Amino acid sequence: MKPFNRVAVVGVGLIGGSVGLAVRSRQLAKTVVGAGSRPATLAAAHKLGAISEVASDLQSAVGGADLIVVCAPVGHIIEQVRQIAPLCSPGALITDVGSTKREIVGELEQIAAADPAWGRDVHFVGSHPLAGNEKQGPQHASADLFVSRTVVITPTAATRAEDRQTLMDFWSHLGARVLEMSADEHDRAVAATSHLPHLVASAIAGATPEGYVTLTASGWQDTTRIAAGDPLLWRQIMLANRTHLLASLDRFSILLSQWREALAAGDAVALERLLTEAKRIRDAVGS
Amino acid sequence: MKPFNRVAVVGVGLIGGSVGLAVRSRQLAKTVVGAGSRPATLAAAHKLGAISEVASDLQSAVGGADLIVVCAPVGHIIEQVRQIAPLCSPGALITDVGSTKREIVGELEQIAAADPAWGRDVHFVGSHPLAGNEKQGPQHASADLFVSRTVVITPTAATRAEDRQTLMDFWSHLGARVLEMSADEHDRAVAATSHLPHLVASAIAGATPEGYVTLTASGWQDTTRIAAGDPLLWRQIMLANRTHLLASLDRFSILLSQWREALAAGDAVALERLLTEAKRIRDAVGS
Repeated sequence: MKPFNRVAVVGVGLIGGSVGLAVRSRQLAKTVVGAGSRPATLAAAHKLGAISEVASDLQSAVGGADLIVVCAPVGHIIEQVRQIAPLCSPGALITDVGSTKREIVGELEQIAAADPAWGRDVHFVGSHPLAGNEKQGPQHASADLFVSRTVVITPTAATRAEDRQTLMDFWSHLGARVLEMSADEHDRAVAATSHLPHLVASAIAGATPEGYVTLTASGWQDTTRIAAGDPLLWRQIMLANRTHLLASLDRFSILLSQWREALAAGDAVALERLLTEAKRIRDAVGS
Repeated sequence: MKPFNRVAVVGVGLIGGSVGLAVRSRQLAKTVVGAGSRPATLAAAHKLGAISEVASDLQSAVGGADLIVVCAPVGHIIEQVRQIAPLCSPGALITDVGSTKREIVGELEQIAAADPAWGRDVHFVGSHPLAGNEKQGPQHASADLFVSRTVVITPTAATRAEDRQTLMDFWSHLGARVLEMSADEHDRAVAATSHLPHLVASAIAGATPEGYVTLTASGWQDTTRIAAGDPLLWRQIMLANRTHLLASLDRFSILLSQWREALAAGDAVALERLLTEAKRIRDAVGS
Protein backbone atom coordinates (compact mmCIF):
# COMPACT_ATOMS: atom_id res chain seq x y z
CA MET A 1 0.00 0.00 0.00
CA LYS A 2 1.37 3.43 -0.86
CA PRO A 3 1.05 5.81 2.09
CA PHE A 4 -1.84 8.24 2.12
CA ASN A 5 -1.17 11.88 1.68
CA ARG A 6 -3.87 13.12 4.00
CA VAL A 7 -6.17 11.07 6.23
CA ALA A 8 -9.10 12.89 7.81
CA VAL A 9 -10.61 11.56 11.01
CA VAL A 10 -14.05 12.96 11.71
CA GLY A 11 -14.82 12.42 15.39
CA VAL A 12 -11.73 11.89 17.54
CA GLY A 13 -13.02 9.86 20.52
CA LEU A 14 -11.78 6.40 21.51
CA ILE A 15 -12.04 4.92 18.01
CA GLY A 16 -11.18 8.02 15.98
CA GLY A 17 -8.30 8.82 18.30
CA SER A 18 -7.02 5.27 17.96
CA VAL A 19 -7.25 5.44 14.15
CA GLY A 20 -5.17 8.60 14.27
CA LEU A 21 -2.57 7.17 16.64
CA ALA A 22 -2.39 3.94 14.66
CA VAL A 23 -1.92 5.72 11.32
CA ARG A 24 0.64 8.16 12.70
CA SER A 25 2.69 5.59 14.60
CA ARG A 26 2.91 3.47 11.45
CA GLN A 27 3.61 6.49 9.25
CA LEU A 28 0.81 5.57 6.87
CA ALA A 29 -0.03 9.20 6.04
CA LYS A 30 1.80 12.49 5.77
CA THR A 31 -0.96 14.30 7.60
CA VAL A 32 -3.73 13.12 9.92
CA VAL A 33 -6.25 15.88 10.29
CA GLY A 34 -9.00 15.75 12.87
CA ALA A 35 -12.42 17.32 12.76
CA GLY A 36 -15.25 17.22 15.25
CA SER A 37 -17.89 19.20 17.02
CA ARG A 38 -16.08 19.62 20.35
CA PRO A 39 -13.00 21.86 20.31
CA ALA A 40 -11.82 20.48 23.68
CA THR A 41 -11.84 16.89 22.38
CA LEU A 42 -9.98 17.96 19.24
CA ALA A 43 -7.39 19.79 21.31
CA ALA A 44 -6.96 16.74 23.55
CA ALA A 45 -6.54 14.44 20.52
CA HIS A 46 -3.97 16.84 19.09
CA LYS A 47 -2.06 16.99 22.36
CA LEU A 48 -2.04 13.20 22.57
CA GLY A 49 -0.60 13.00 19.07
CA ALA A 50 -3.66 11.28 17.61
CA ILE A 51 -3.93 13.95 14.93
CA SER A 52 -1.22 16.14 13.45
CA GLU A 53 -3.59 18.96 12.57
CA VAL A 54 -6.87 20.33 13.89
CA ALA A 55 -9.33 21.36 11.19
CA SER A 56 -11.42 24.45 11.83
CA ASP A 57 -14.32 23.04 9.84
CA LEU A 58 -15.34 20.00 7.79
CA GLN A 59 -14.42 21.64 4.49
CA SER A 60 -10.81 22.20 5.49
CA ALA A 61 -10.63 18.74 7.08
CA VAL A 62 -11.75 16.67 4.11
CA GLY A 63 -10.57 18.87 1.23
CA GLY A 64 -7.47 17.20 -0.19
CA ALA A 65 -7.89 14.06 1.93
CA ASP A 66 -7.54 10.73 0.11
CA LEU A 67 -9.13 8.81 3.00
CA ILE A 68 -11.82 10.05 5.36
CA VAL A 69 -12.71 7.93 8.37
CA VAL A 70 -16.01 8.95 9.92
CA CYS A 71 -16.01 8.02 13.61
CA ALA A 72 -19.30 9.61 14.58
CA PRO A 73 -21.88 7.73 16.68
CA VAL A 74 -23.99 5.31 14.62
CA GLY A 75 -27.04 7.59 14.57
CA HIS A 76 -25.08 10.46 13.00
CA ILE A 77 -23.03 8.68 10.38
CA ILE A 78 -25.40 8.96 7.44
CA GLU A 79 -25.89 12.68 7.96
CA GLN A 80 -22.19 13.23 8.53
CA VAL A 81 -21.16 11.43 5.32
CA ARG A 82 -23.88 13.22 3.39
CA GLN A 83 -22.36 16.53 4.53
CA ILE A 84 -18.81 15.46 3.80
CA ALA A 85 -19.17 13.86 0.36
CA PRO A 86 -19.72 17.10 -1.57
CA LEU A 87 -16.66 18.65 0.11
CA CYS A 88 -14.26 15.85 -0.81
CA SER A 89 -11.61 16.01 -3.50
CA PRO A 90 -11.95 13.71 -6.52
CA GLY A 91 -10.73 10.18 -5.81
CA ALA A 92 -11.49 10.39 -2.09
CA LEU A 93 -12.57 7.25 -0.25
CA ILE A 94 -14.89 7.65 2.73
CA THR A 95 -15.42 4.95 5.32
CA ASP A 96 -17.03 4.81 8.74
CA VAL A 97 -16.62 2.73 11.89
CA GLY A 98 -20.29 2.25 12.80
CA SER A 99 -21.39 -0.89 14.65
CA THR A 100 -24.31 -1.43 12.29
CA LYS A 101 -23.99 -1.42 8.53
CA ARG A 102 -27.22 -2.23 6.66
CA GLU A 103 -28.98 1.09 7.21
CA ILE A 104 -25.81 3.18 6.74
CA VAL A 105 -24.53 1.42 3.62
CA GLY A 106 -27.99 1.14 2.05
CA GLU A 107 -29.00 4.75 2.58
CA LEU A 108 -25.65 6.18 1.56
CA GLU A 109 -25.69 4.18 -1.65
CA GLN A 110 -29.09 5.63 -2.50
CA ILE A 111 -27.98 9.13 -1.61
CA ALA A 112 -24.77 8.83 -3.65
CA ALA A 113 -26.79 7.73 -6.68
CA ALA A 114 -29.44 10.41 -6.36
CA ASP A 115 -27.76 13.48 -4.87
CA PRO A 116 -26.19 15.72 -7.51
CA ALA A 117 -24.03 17.37 -4.82
CA TRP A 118 -22.25 14.07 -4.09
CA GLY A 119 -18.90 14.19 -5.86
CA ARG A 120 -18.66 11.99 -8.95
CA ASP A 121 -15.38 10.45 -7.97
CA VAL A 122 -16.05 10.20 -4.23
CA HIS A 123 -16.85 6.76 -2.85
CA PHE A 124 -18.11 5.28 0.40
CA VAL A 125 -17.40 1.77 1.69
CA GLY A 126 -18.52 0.75 5.19
CA SER A 127 -16.20 -0.58 7.91
CA HIS A 128 -16.74 -1.89 11.39
CA PRO A 129 -13.72 -2.44 13.60
CA LEU A 130 -14.74 -4.86 16.35
CA ALA A 131 -12.66 -3.03 18.90
CA GLY A 132 -13.23 -0.53 21.64
CA ASN A 133 -14.83 -0.92 24.98
CA GLU A 134 -17.05 0.86 27.44
CA LYS A 135 -14.61 3.75 27.72
CA GLN A 136 -14.95 6.99 25.82
CA GLY A 137 -12.71 9.81 24.69
CA PRO A 138 -9.32 10.18 23.01
CA GLN A 139 -7.51 9.78 26.35
CA HIS A 140 -8.33 6.04 26.15
CA ALA A 141 -7.18 5.74 22.53
CA SER A 142 -4.37 3.38 21.61
CA ALA A 143 -2.17 2.97 18.53
CA ASP A 144 -2.67 -0.77 18.86
CA LEU A 145 -6.43 -0.86 19.41
CA PHE A 146 -6.95 -2.70 16.12
CA VAL A 147 -4.08 -5.16 16.40
CA SER A 148 -5.37 -8.74 16.10
CA ARG A 149 -8.94 -7.45 16.11
CA THR A 150 -11.47 -8.15 13.40
CA VAL A 151 -12.52 -5.38 11.06
CA VAL A 152 -15.48 -6.10 8.81
CA ILE A 153 -15.76 -4.19 5.56
CA THR A 154 -19.02 -4.26 3.64
CA PRO A 155 -18.51 -3.54 -0.05
CA THR A 156 -21.53 -3.70 -2.35
CA ALA A 157 -21.98 -4.52 -6.02
CA ALA A 158 -21.32 -0.84 -6.70
CA THR A 159 -17.97 -0.78 -4.86
CA ARG A 160 -14.90 -0.37 -7.06
CA ALA A 161 -12.25 -3.06 -6.67
CA GLU A 162 -9.57 -0.46 -5.94
CA ASP A 163 -11.54 1.08 -3.07
CA ARG A 164 -12.17 -2.31 -1.57
CA GLN A 165 -8.46 -3.08 -1.80
CA THR A 166 -7.45 0.28 -0.33
CA LEU A 167 -9.75 -0.22 2.64
CA MET A 168 -8.61 -3.77 3.19
CA ASP A 169 -4.97 -2.68 3.08
CA PHE A 170 -5.67 0.23 5.40
CA TRP A 171 -7.11 -1.86 8.23
CA SER A 172 -4.59 -4.64 7.65
CA HIS A 173 -1.77 -2.16 8.11
CA LEU A 174 -3.28 -1.15 11.44
CA GLY A 175 -2.89 -4.79 12.49
CA ALA A 176 -6.47 -5.97 12.00
CA ARG A 177 -7.78 -9.17 10.48
CA VAL A 178 -10.12 -7.95 7.75
CA LEU A 179 -13.32 -9.79 6.81
CA GLU A 180 -15.59 -8.91 3.93
CA MET A 181 -19.30 -9.54 4.06
CA SER A 182 -22.57 -7.97 3.06
CA ALA A 183 -23.94 -5.29 5.34
CA ASP A 184 -26.97 -7.42 6.15
CA GLU A 185 -24.89 -10.49 6.94
CA HIS A 186 -22.72 -8.32 9.19
CA ASP A 187 -25.73 -6.95 11.06
CA ARG A 188 -27.20 -10.39 11.58
CA ALA A 189 -23.92 -11.67 13.03
CA VAL A 190 -23.20 -8.75 15.37
CA ALA A 191 -26.78 -8.89 16.63
CA ALA A 192 -25.76 -12.22 18.20
CA THR A 193 -22.14 -11.43 19.10
CA SER A 194 -22.40 -7.84 20.25
CA HIS A 195 -25.84 -6.27 20.47
CA LEU A 196 -27.59 -9.15 22.26
CA PRO A 197 -24.74 -9.44 24.81
CA HIS A 198 -25.03 -5.70 25.41
CA LEU A 199 -28.76 -5.87 25.92
CA VAL A 200 -28.51 -8.87 28.23
CA ALA A 201 -25.56 -7.48 30.19
CA SER A 202 -27.59 -4.34 30.75
CA ALA A 203 -30.62 -6.34 31.82
CA ILE A 204 -28.46 -8.26 34.33
CA ALA A 205 -27.14 -5.01 35.78
CA GLY A 206 -30.64 -3.53 35.82
CA ALA A 207 -32.06 -6.62 37.54
CA THR A 208 -29.56 -6.44 40.41
CA PRO A 209 -31.25 -5.22 43.59
CA GLU A 210 -29.23 -2.28 44.88
CA GLY A 211 -28.97 -3.74 48.35
CA TYR A 212 -27.00 -6.65 46.91
CA VAL A 213 -24.38 -4.58 45.15
CA THR A 214 -21.84 -5.28 47.93
CA LEU A 215 -22.19 -8.97 47.06
CA THR A 216 -21.08 -8.59 43.47
CA ALA A 217 -17.71 -10.06 42.52
CA SER A 218 -15.67 -10.56 39.37
CA GLY A 219 -18.32 -12.74 37.70
CA TRP A 220 -20.94 -10.02 37.91
CA GLN A 221 -18.37 -7.39 36.96
CA ASP A 222 -17.27 -9.22 33.82
CA THR A 223 -20.80 -10.12 32.78
CA THR A 224 -22.11 -6.56 33.13
CA ARG A 225 -19.00 -4.58 32.09
CA ILE A 226 -20.41 -3.40 28.75
CA ALA A 227 -23.52 -2.07 30.48
CA ALA A 228 -21.35 0.93 31.38
CA GLY A 229 -21.34 1.94 27.70
CA ASP A 230 -22.93 5.14 26.46
CA PRO A 231 -26.75 4.75 26.56
CA LEU A 232 -27.30 7.17 23.70
CA LEU A 233 -24.88 5.35 21.40
CA TRP A 234 -26.32 1.96 22.29
CA ARG A 235 -29.88 3.11 21.83
CA GLN A 236 -28.88 4.11 18.30
CA ILE A 237 -27.14 0.81 17.62
CA MET A 238 -30.02 -1.28 18.92
CA LEU A 239 -32.61 0.66 16.93
CA ALA A 240 -30.50 0.56 13.76
CA ASN A 241 -30.27 -3.23 14.08
CA ARG A 242 -33.71 -3.78 15.54
CA THR A 243 -34.91 -6.61 13.29
CA HIS A 244 -31.85 -8.81 13.69
CA LEU A 245 -31.55 -8.00 17.39
CA LEU A 246 -35.16 -8.98 18.02
CA ALA A 247 -34.62 -12.28 16.21
CA SER A 248 -31.47 -12.86 18.23
CA LEU A 249 -33.24 -12.00 21.49
CA ASP A 250 -36.04 -14.41 20.68
CA ARG A 251 -33.60 -17.24 20.00
CA PHE A 252 -31.88 -16.41 23.27
CA SER A 253 -35.19 -16.43 25.14
CA ILE A 254 -36.01 -19.89 23.83
CA LEU A 255 -32.66 -21.15 25.09
CA LEU A 256 -33.22 -19.38 28.41
CA SER A 257 -36.53 -21.18 28.84
CA GLN A 258 -34.68 -24.49 28.44
CA TRP A 259 -32.41 -23.42 31.29
CA ARG A 260 -35.44 -22.52 33.37
CA GLU A 261 -37.08 -25.88 32.72
CA ALA A 262 -33.93 -27.80 33.64
CA LEU A 263 -33.56 -25.81 36.83
CA ALA A 264 -37.23 -26.03 37.82
CA ALA A 265 -37.17 -29.78 37.27
CA GLY A 266 -33.92 -30.13 39.22
CA ASP A 267 -32.62 -31.92 36.12
CA ALA A 268 -28.89 -32.24 36.81
CA VAL A 269 -28.18 -33.94 33.49
CA ALA A 270 -29.88 -31.25 31.41
CA LEU A 271 -28.23 -28.47 33.41
CA GLU A 272 -24.79 -29.98 33.00
CA ARG A 273 -25.40 -30.44 29.28
CA LEU A 274 -26.35 -26.76 28.91
CA LEU A 275 -23.34 -25.66 30.96
CA THR A 276 -21.01 -27.91 29.00
CA GLU A 277 -22.24 -26.69 25.63
CA ALA A 278 -21.82 -23.06 26.73
CA LYS A 279 -18.31 -23.78 28.01
CA ARG A 280 -17.40 -25.46 24.73
CA ILE A 281 -18.32 -22.36 22.72
CA ARG A 282 -16.72 -20.01 25.26
CA ASP A 283 -13.49 -22.02 25.35
CA ALA A 284 -13.31 -21.99 21.54
CA VAL A 285 -13.07 -18.19 21.62
CA GLY A 286 -10.52 -17.87 24.43
CA SER A 287 -9.81 -14.87 26.62
CA MET B 1 -5.78 -12.63 66.55
CA LYS B 2 -3.29 -15.11 67.94
CA PRO B 3 -1.74 -17.18 65.15
CA PHE B 4 -3.09 -20.65 64.53
CA ASN B 5 -0.97 -23.62 65.34
CA ARG B 6 -2.14 -25.77 62.45
CA VAL B 7 -4.48 -24.85 59.62
CA ALA B 8 -5.77 -27.71 57.46
CA VAL B 9 -6.87 -26.99 53.90
CA VAL B 10 -9.01 -29.76 52.45
CA GLY B 11 -9.02 -29.38 48.67
CA VAL B 12 -6.08 -27.36 47.32
CA GLY B 13 -7.36 -25.96 44.02
CA LEU B 14 -7.63 -22.27 43.17
CA ILE B 15 -9.39 -21.28 46.41
CA GLY B 16 -7.75 -23.78 48.76
CA GLY B 17 -4.33 -23.04 47.29
CA SER B 18 -4.95 -19.32 47.74
CA VAL B 19 -6.02 -19.82 51.36
CA GLY B 20 -2.75 -21.69 51.95
CA LEU B 21 -0.60 -19.07 50.22
CA ALA B 22 -2.42 -16.25 52.00
CA VAL B 23 -2.03 -17.84 55.45
CA ARG B 24 1.61 -18.76 54.92
CA SER B 25 2.67 -15.43 53.44
CA ARG B 26 1.09 -13.64 56.41
CA GLN B 27 2.52 -16.15 58.90
CA LEU B 28 -0.88 -16.76 60.45
CA ALA B 29 -0.13 -20.41 61.23
CA LYS B 30 2.85 -22.53 62.16
CA THR B 31 1.76 -25.26 59.78
CA VAL B 32 -0.55 -25.33 56.79
CA VAL B 33 -1.37 -28.90 55.96
CA GLY B 34 -3.12 -29.87 52.75
CA ALA B 35 -5.38 -32.81 52.08
CA GLY B 36 -7.23 -33.85 48.96
CA SER B 37 -8.17 -36.69 46.70
CA ARG B 38 -5.61 -36.02 43.95
CA PRO B 39 -1.96 -36.61 44.89
CA ALA B 40 -0.75 -34.62 41.84
CA THR B 41 -2.71 -31.55 42.90
CA LEU B 42 -1.42 -31.84 46.46
CA ALA B 43 2.14 -32.17 45.19
CA ALA B 44 1.68 -29.10 42.98
CA ALA B 45 0.25 -27.08 45.87
CA HIS B 46 3.17 -28.13 48.05
CA LYS B 47 5.70 -27.20 45.38
CA LEU B 48 4.04 -23.80 44.96
CA GLY B 49 4.32 -23.20 48.71
CA ALA B 50 0.56 -23.15 49.24
CA ILE B 51 0.89 -25.83 51.93
CA SER B 52 3.83 -26.64 54.16
CA GLU B 53 2.87 -30.26 54.59
CA VAL B 54 1.01 -32.90 52.56
CA ALA B 55 -1.29 -35.11 54.61
CA SER B 56 -1.51 -38.75 53.65
CA ASP B 57 -5.13 -38.95 54.79
CA LEU B 58 -7.90 -36.85 56.33
CA GLN B 59 -7.18 -38.09 59.83
CA SER B 60 -3.60 -36.89 59.80
CA ALA B 61 -4.62 -33.63 58.12
CA VAL B 62 -7.24 -32.48 60.59
CA GLY B 63 -5.96 -34.09 63.81
CA GLY B 64 -4.42 -31.29 65.84
CA ALA B 65 -5.66 -28.55 63.51
CA ASP B 66 -7.32 -25.57 65.16
CA LEU B 67 -8.86 -24.39 61.86
CA ILE B 68 -10.01 -26.58 59.00
CA VAL B 69 -10.98 -24.89 55.73
CA VAL B 70 -12.97 -27.20 53.46
CA CYS B 71 -12.46 -26.12 49.86
CA ALA B 72 -14.33 -28.97 48.18
CA PRO B 73 -16.88 -28.33 45.40
CA VAL B 74 -20.29 -27.27 46.74
CA GLY B 75 -21.87 -30.67 46.17
CA HIS B 76 -19.29 -32.46 48.33
CA ILE B 77 -18.97 -30.09 51.26
CA ILE B 78 -21.62 -31.63 53.52
CA GLU B 79 -20.22 -35.11 53.11
CA GLN B 80 -16.67 -33.87 53.53
CA VAL B 81 -17.39 -32.03 56.77
CA ARG B 82 -19.38 -34.98 58.06
CA GLN B 83 -16.30 -37.17 57.55
CA ILE B 84 -13.93 -34.64 59.06
CA ALA B 85 -15.80 -33.60 62.19
CA PRO B 86 -15.30 -36.87 64.12
CA LEU B 87 -11.55 -36.75 63.35
CA CYS B 88 -11.00 -33.24 64.69
CA SER B 89 -9.32 -32.34 67.95
CA PRO B 90 -11.41 -30.64 70.63
CA GLY B 91 -11.76 -26.91 70.06
CA ALA B 92 -11.42 -27.19 66.29
CA LEU B 93 -13.31 -24.78 64.06
CA ILE B 94 -14.38 -25.99 60.62
CA THR B 95 -15.42 -23.67 57.84
CA ASP B 96 -16.01 -24.05 54.12
CA VAL B 97 -15.83 -21.81 51.05
CA GLY B 98 -18.96 -22.98 49.24
CA SER B 99 -20.89 -20.59 46.99
CA THR B 100 -24.21 -21.58 48.51
CA LYS B 101 -24.85 -21.68 52.23
CA ARG B 102 -28.44 -22.55 53.19
CA GLU B 103 -28.31 -26.25 52.42
CA ILE B 104 -24.77 -26.71 53.77
CA VAL B 105 -25.24 -24.77 56.99
CA GLY B 106 -28.72 -26.19 57.64
CA GLU B 107 -27.81 -29.82 57.09
CA LEU B 108 -24.55 -29.63 58.99
CA GLU B 109 -26.28 -28.07 61.97
CA GLN B 110 -28.74 -30.97 62.03
CA ILE B 111 -25.99 -33.52 61.66
CA ALA B 112 -23.88 -31.92 64.40
CA ALA B 113 -26.83 -32.06 66.78
CA ALA B 114 -27.82 -35.62 65.95
CA ASP B 115 -24.62 -37.49 65.09
CA PRO B 116 -22.92 -38.96 68.15
CA ALA B 117 -19.66 -39.24 66.21
CA TRP B 118 -19.47 -35.46 65.77
CA GLY B 119 -16.97 -34.15 68.32
CA ARG B 120 -18.53 -32.27 71.24
CA ASP B 121 -16.18 -29.37 71.02
CA VAL B 122 -15.94 -29.23 67.22
CA HIS B 123 -17.85 -26.44 65.48
CA PHE B 124 -18.80 -25.51 61.95
CA VAL B 125 -19.45 -21.98 60.66
CA GLY B 126 -20.01 -21.35 56.96
CA SER B 127 -17.95 -18.94 54.83
CA HIS B 128 -18.16 -17.81 51.24
CA PRO B 129 -15.28 -15.80 49.83
CA LEU B 130 -16.56 -13.92 46.77
CA ALA B 131 -13.31 -14.43 44.95
CA GLY B 132 -11.98 -16.73 42.30
CA ASN B 133 -12.73 -16.90 38.66
CA GLU B 134 -13.22 -19.33 35.82
CA LYS B 135 -9.74 -20.77 36.31
CA GLN B 136 -9.03 -23.93 38.25
CA GLY B 137 -6.10 -25.51 40.06
CA PRO B 138 -3.44 -24.39 42.55
CA GLN B 139 -1.27 -23.00 39.75
CA HIS B 140 -3.71 -20.06 39.53
CA ALA B 141 -3.75 -19.51 43.30
CA SER B 142 -2.66 -16.19 44.76
CA ALA B 143 -1.71 -15.05 48.26
CA ASP B 144 -3.77 -11.93 47.63
CA LEU B 145 -6.88 -13.52 46.13
CA PHE B 146 -8.99 -12.34 49.07
CA VAL B 147 -7.58 -8.83 49.39
CA SER B 148 -10.39 -6.26 49.14
CA ARG B 149 -12.85 -9.03 48.31
CA THR B 150 -16.00 -9.72 50.24
CA VAL B 151 -16.21 -12.82 52.41
CA VAL B 152 -19.63 -13.65 53.80
CA ILE B 153 -19.80 -15.68 57.01
CA THR B 154 -23.10 -17.22 58.02
CA PRO B 155 -23.24 -17.86 61.77
CA THR B 156 -26.46 -19.23 63.23
CA ALA B 157 -28.15 -18.96 66.62
CA ALA B 158 -26.07 -21.96 67.66
CA THR B 159 -22.72 -20.39 66.72
CA ARG B 160 -20.46 -19.50 69.63
CA ALA B 161 -19.33 -15.87 69.78
CA GLU B 162 -15.67 -16.93 69.88
CA ASP B 163 -15.94 -19.01 66.69
CA ARG B 164 -17.65 -16.17 64.88
CA GLN B 165 -14.90 -13.84 66.00
CA THR B 166 -12.13 -16.26 65.03
CA LEU B 167 -13.58 -16.68 61.55
CA MET B 168 -14.09 -12.97 61.10
CA ASP B 169 -10.52 -12.29 62.17
CA PHE B 170 -9.20 -15.05 59.92
CA TRP B 171 -10.69 -13.66 56.70
CA SER B 172 -9.95 -10.09 57.73
CA HIS B 173 -6.30 -10.98 58.15
CA LEU B 174 -6.30 -12.34 54.61
CA GLY B 175 -7.36 -8.86 53.47
CA ALA B 176 -11.06 -9.48 52.99
CA ARG B 177 -14.02 -7.33 53.94
CA VAL B 178 -16.15 -9.66 56.06
CA LEU B 179 -19.95 -9.50 56.06
CA GLU B 180 -22.21 -11.53 58.34
CA MET B 181 -25.64 -12.64 57.23
CA SER B 182 -27.98 -15.58 57.48
CA ALA B 183 -27.36 -18.45 55.09
CA ASP B 184 -30.72 -17.87 53.44
CA GLU B 185 -30.15 -14.14 53.01
CA HIS B 186 -26.75 -14.94 51.50
CA ASP B 187 -28.21 -17.40 49.02
CA ARG B 188 -30.93 -14.98 47.95
CA ALA B 189 -28.35 -12.26 47.30
CA VAL B 190 -25.83 -14.38 45.38
CA ALA B 191 -28.63 -15.81 43.25
CA ALA B 192 -28.89 -12.29 41.80
CA THR B 193 -25.23 -11.28 41.87
CA SER B 194 -23.52 -14.53 40.91
CA HIS B 195 -25.70 -17.48 39.94
CA LEU B 196 -28.06 -15.60 37.61
CA PRO B 197 -25.13 -13.88 35.82
CA HIS B 198 -23.52 -17.30 35.41
CA LEU B 199 -26.65 -18.82 33.96
CA VAL B 200 -27.24 -15.90 31.62
CA ALA B 201 -23.59 -15.67 30.54
CA SER B 202 -23.75 -19.35 29.69
CA ALA B 203 -26.99 -18.89 27.77
CA ILE B 204 -25.41 -16.05 25.77
CA ALA B 205 -22.44 -18.24 24.89
CA GLY B 206 -24.75 -21.14 24.07
CA ALA B 207 -26.94 -18.93 21.87
CA THR B 208 -24.00 -17.79 19.73
CA PRO B 209 -24.10 -19.47 16.31
CA GLU B 210 -20.72 -21.08 15.76
CA GLY B 211 -20.31 -19.46 12.37
CA TYR B 212 -20.32 -16.06 14.08
CA VAL B 213 -17.57 -16.82 16.56
CA THR B 214 -15.02 -14.87 14.48
CA LEU B 215 -17.22 -11.81 14.98
CA THR B 216 -16.98 -11.84 18.76
CA ALA B 217 -15.01 -9.07 20.41
CA SER B 218 -14.26 -7.88 23.93
CA GLY B 219 -17.93 -7.24 24.76
CA TRP B 220 -18.89 -10.84 24.08
CA GLN B 221 -15.73 -12.06 25.80
CA ASP B 222 -16.39 -10.13 28.99
CA THR B 223 -20.07 -11.00 29.07
CA THR B 224 -19.50 -14.72 28.64
CA ARG B 225 -16.20 -15.13 30.53
CA ILE B 226 -17.69 -17.04 33.47
CA ALA B 227 -19.32 -19.53 31.10
CA ALA B 228 -15.86 -21.15 30.95
CA GLY B 229 -16.32 -22.26 34.56
CA ASP B 230 -16.52 -25.92 35.56
CA PRO B 231 -19.94 -27.30 34.48
CA LEU B 232 -20.02 -29.88 37.27
CA LEU B 233 -19.36 -27.29 39.97
CA TRP B 234 -21.91 -24.88 38.54
CA ARG B 235 -24.54 -27.56 38.18
CA GLN B 236 -24.11 -28.21 41.90
CA ILE B 237 -24.28 -24.52 42.79
CA MET B 238 -27.38 -23.91 40.69
CA LEU B 239 -29.20 -26.91 42.10
CA ALA B 240 -28.23 -26.07 45.67
CA ASN B 241 -29.69 -22.59 45.19
CA ARG B 242 -32.51 -23.57 42.89
CA THR B 243 -35.38 -21.74 44.59
CA HIS B 244 -33.68 -18.37 44.85
CA LEU B 245 -32.13 -18.72 41.40
CA LEU B 246 -35.51 -19.46 39.82
CA ALA B 247 -37.00 -16.39 41.50
CA SER B 248 -34.07 -14.31 40.30
CA LEU B 249 -34.38 -15.69 36.77
CA ASP B 250 -38.06 -14.86 36.70
CA ARG B 251 -37.44 -11.28 37.80
CA PHE B 252 -34.78 -11.04 35.10
CA SER B 253 -37.16 -12.40 32.47
CA ILE B 254 -39.76 -9.78 33.33
CA LEU B 255 -37.16 -7.07 32.86
CA LEU B 256 -36.01 -8.69 29.63
CA SER B 257 -39.54 -8.59 28.27
CA GLN B 258 -39.57 -4.83 28.93
CA TRP B 259 -36.44 -4.56 26.77
CA ARG B 260 -38.11 -6.61 24.09
CA GLU B 261 -41.19 -4.40 24.10
CA ALA B 262 -39.15 -1.22 23.88
CA LEU B 263 -37.13 -2.64 21.01
CA ALA B 264 -40.13 -4.04 19.12
CA ALA B 265 -41.92 -0.71 19.44
CA GLY B 266 -38.82 1.20 18.35
CA ASP B 267 -39.28 3.18 21.56
CA ALA B 268 -36.07 5.20 21.80
CA VAL B 269 -37.05 6.85 25.08
CA ALA B 270 -37.81 3.55 26.83
CA LEU B 271 -34.62 1.95 25.49
CA GLU B 272 -32.49 4.84 26.64
CA ARG B 273 -34.14 4.74 30.06
CA LEU B 274 -33.36 1.02 30.41
CA LEU B 275 -29.78 1.52 29.24
CA THR B 276 -29.29 4.48 31.57
CA GLU B 277 -30.65 2.62 34.60
CA ALA B 278 -28.34 -0.34 33.86
CA LYS B 279 -25.36 1.98 33.45
CA ARG B 280 -26.16 3.69 36.76
CA ILE B 281 -26.04 0.39 38.66
CA ARG B 282 -22.97 -0.81 36.74
CA ASP B 283 -21.10 2.45 37.33
CA ALA B 284 -21.88 2.27 41.06
CA VAL B 285 -19.92 -0.99 41.29
CA GLY B 286 -16.89 0.06 39.23
CA SER B 287 -14.37 -2.11 37.48
